Amino acid sequence: MNHRLRLRRLGIDTCIEPVLYMRRECHACRAEGFEARSRVKVLLGERSLLVTLNIITGNLLAPDEAALSESAWAALGAREGDMITLAHPDPVASEGRLRAKVYGERLSDADLGAIVEDVVQGKFSDLQLAAFITACAGHGLDAGETLALTRAMIDTGERIRWDYPVVADKHSIGGLPGNRTTPILVPIVAACGLPIPKTSSRAITSAAGTADTMETLAPINLDIASMRRVIEREGGCIVWGGAVRLAPADDILIRVERPLDFDSDAQVVASILSKKAAAGVTHLVIDMPIGPTAKVRSGAAMRSLAGSLEAVAGALGIRLQILQSDGAQPVGRGIGPALEARDVLAVLKGDPQAPADLREHALALAGAVLELAGACRAGSGLALARTVLAGGHAWRKFQAICEAQGGMRVPPRAAHTHVVLSTAKGRIASFDNRRLGRMAKLAGAPRAPAAGLELHVRAGETVVAGQPLLTVHAEAPGELAYALRYLDSQPDILVIVPEHEPARLRAAGQ
Amino acid sequence: MNHRLRLRRLGIDTCIEPVLYMRRECHACRAEGFEARSRVKVLLGERSLLVTLNIITGNLLAPDEAALSESAWAALGAREGDMITLAHPDPVASEGRLRAKVYGERLSDADLGAIVEDVVQGKFSDLQLAAFITACAGHGLDAGETLALTRAMIDTGERIRWDYPVVADKHSIGGLPGNRTTPILVPIVAACGLPIPKTSSRAITSAAGTADTMETLAPINLDIASMRRVIEREGGCIVWGGAVRLAPADDILIRVERPLDFDSDAQVVASILSKKAAAGVTHLVIDMPIGPTAKVRSGAAMRSLAGSLEAVAGALGIRLQILQSDGAQPVGRGIGPALEARDVLAVLKGDPQAPADLREHALALAGAVLELAGACRAGSGLALARTVLAGGHAWRKFQAICEAQGGMRVPPRAAHTHVVLSTAKGRIASFDNRRLGRMAKLAGAPRAPAAGLELHVRAGETVVAGQPLLTVHAEAPGELAYALRYLDSQPDILVIVPEHEPARLRAAGQ
Repeated sequence: MNHRLRLRRLGIDTCIEPVLYMRRECHACRAEGFEARSRVKVLLGERSLLVTLNIITGNLLAPDEAALSESAWAALGAREGDMITLAHPDPVASEGRLRAKVYGERLSDADLGAIVEDVVQGKFSDLQLAAFITACAGHGLDAGETLALTRAMIDTGERIRWDYPVVADKHSIGGLPGNRTTPILVPIVAACGLPIPKTSSRAITSAAGTADTMETLAPINLDIASMRRVIEREGGCIVWGGAVRLAPADDILIRVERPLDFDSDAQVVASILSKKAAAGVTHLVIDMPIGPTAKVRSGAAMRSLAGSLEAVAGALGIRLQILQSDGAQPVGRGIGPALEARDVLAVLKGDPQAPADLREHALALAGAVLELAGACRAGSGLALARTVLAGGHAWRKFQAICEAQGGMRVPPRAAHTHVVLSTAKGRIASFDNRRLGRMAKLAGAPRAPAAGLELHVRAGETVVAGQPLLTVHAEAPGELAYALRYLDSQPDILVIVPEHEPARLRAAGQ
Repeated sequence: MNHRLRLRRLGIDTCIEPVLYMRRECHACRAEGFEARSRVKVLLGERSLLVTLNIITGNLLAPDEAALSESAWAALGAREGDMITLAHPDPVASEGRLRAKVYGERLSDADLGAIVEDVVQGKFSDLQLAAFITACAGHGLDAGETLALTRAMIDTGERIRWDYPVVADKHSIGGLPGNRTTPILVPIVAACGLPIPKTSSRAITSAAGTADTMETLAPINLDIASMRRVIEREGGCIVWGGAVRLAPADDILIRVERPLDFDSDAQVVASILSKKAAAGVTHLVIDMPIGPTAKVRSGAAMRSLAGSLEAVAGALGIRLQILQSDGAQPVGRGIGPALEARDVLAVLKGDPQAPADLREHALALAGAVLELAGACRAGSGLALARTVLAGGHAWRKFQAICEAQGGMRVPPRAAHTHVVLSTAKGRIASFDNRRLGRMAKLAGAPRAPAAGLELHVRAGETVVAGQPLLTVHAEAPGELAYALRYLDSQPDILVIVPEHEPARLRAAGQ
């Protein structure tokens, strides 16, 4: 019951779900009873892949041709004109256990291991992944299940093993624009002799991930061997986690969680700790900003997530400390890769104009890492971090790390800027983190690395009419215009409260 | 922030989810920050539609072109070269209530009304529909929620209103091949003067739906006005439900439930009763086969589903009776549209060779409908049905219904057949309903209406080596071969237990 079809590359990116395109009239489709949304097994040489079928009703393909989405094309190592064979898929072994979770059953370690294995092997459709994420959010995973999920995610990817007794790391729970403490913290910690092999992500929904910001300062696309050489030479690195295959199940689940816009404590815990454990981390500080438009929005949500993080980290042998911080407004001035990099450089160089909130937040986290990992006495971490920064040691270490990663770069500057002025006298009452991020993205970030926002005011400050509030940076005039039009349609992004009545922000500028 | 793109028709059928295809480099994509899986609002003239984005990485489309999946193309009434405008979607109002169900909250009537309205308007992505179906399966819906879901499904589609005080109907819960009682029951009931406007479905996962079988005997693609004329003239009809827009939310949810392969009592109840209420039915008999490979697999599952059906039917003012039946093996001899139609004709014509199990099952259900709707005294329904069938009244009524629907047809016969012989002496121990259906589909059913299986033995019968077990019918020799190869790979489809040890079926034939 095999059928051969000739591959054509149509170049369709479906995000991550592998899709096969085939004519309805083609022999395989008729004989096998395949229809749109059928799951089909595609074989090419030694490789095989489960895909979801889309039917071509016109003549985009010939009856003996098939096409694959880009992720499927890559997974099969396909080339134009290759002959593929189709078959009905074998039953997915863990499907019954996924269904058990849908109906609220507890899953064993073996169940979760089997499910994660099938996730990594691409055996589940996006609809099934959505069902798994929904079931985990709805019924929750207990402590044992959360640990088993984390372990299964670790076991299905690469692991880095270090010869150091202590390997430090820091992780920030997302949602806060400009919270770019990593490139400040890593050189401070490394300058104190603690190994800190930091892998960072690119932006998922934000205007810049740490990897995007760091890429304006140095190459970040290092494999495990290159990353190891940087650590051996400098003790620290800041590389893109996507190039090292740590806990790949997490990346697959995140692609479905993002459009659903919900997850569960268990998945957040497994996501963070599986990557850290796979990276060989022994001591971890977690930065948890709490605020009405941050990822963690209440003390109750914080306590629930923190309890689960501590339990799983303990079982994995990772020493963990969680630091709450203020998530009410962005950190630093820049929002966007290069603008955030400029804040980072200002702090590292000891520029008196450097944003104090970013510096203090990075120092507090670095101090906590130093204390947790035993690089100094309890209570002396912050002072040590401050000394290392103030003495220029961190700045020299950062330059050395950039050199070791392939050479330091100067962050680009945007060709087009527009200063937004206050139209009223009053006090800055609040920022909307999510919409600030969205506005920076409309300006082009992170694709255009110089694009984004530069904030000139902080919550609580008073302003007068005509005073600059923020500058929009863009690489193209059209994008500048989009960002400003969005600002006009979303006046609550930045709320100014005058003495008598609330005023709204307008894009009227200089 | 609107962007115009020229439409090209690529002819991609994604099942039901509307998809937009667009180049990554195009202005709209860059400026709006759209990426694969983004939800995008497409505007064309007065119409708009929420779609999911797929990115074209090659040059299948020009940067100022876009394409739509077939369902999106139809929903927007698009024509080649039309200019569409893109925008960020407005928030979907009921999204928060969907998320509440994910976390186990009870939904109000208004919540479910809003969710179903947004389902019908295509505002949810397939991933969100999967989350809703999973949450309903996992947390369950209570009696009030199930009723509200059903009512919301009725209210978002067409309704047929009749002038008759009593409108009868029958529904079979699926999963049993050959259970084709409708074309026998409808003419019996109509011949007794009870209006029975039956809408039937095509096969979803089976080798034949009632609509597929009926289509080999008469036209079935009637709109509501034509259906009304048939009922006014003959009192009964058997038409395809897909041509009348009753409870369209159900069709949308089923497209996602099918690949997920799970649903909930609430969704089964809402699915059945919303269509019946919308069709104006007042008295309904439900046929519920129970067996290890049927849809309802245990007495407990039966009681739970039956309780929910009775509660909702009561609230909707529908008189309901549920009849359990034996779901251990197929009903009748044929599996496939024309083969099942031949069984139906044999029963209607009083052929002494007609399958007795199909006849008796149809008579029992018809008797129950007659009694429930008050067409005869309690306890006399079966005898009345038998008299109407034996006297040729049902056969004449069936011919008249077929004529009124557009003219009676003769079911086709397959060009290629193969008789499968028993290789052992023994007793037929069991059939696997699901795999028999799969084998009939590999032979070409329901697309090839003459294709399928013809069973010559029943469970419990004894056979000798060389005795015919079943005949495979196909319209093409390749399909005949596929079905036989599948049988060879799945020997448990039909288990023969000899005196000393279990034997397995082989495709060795005459």
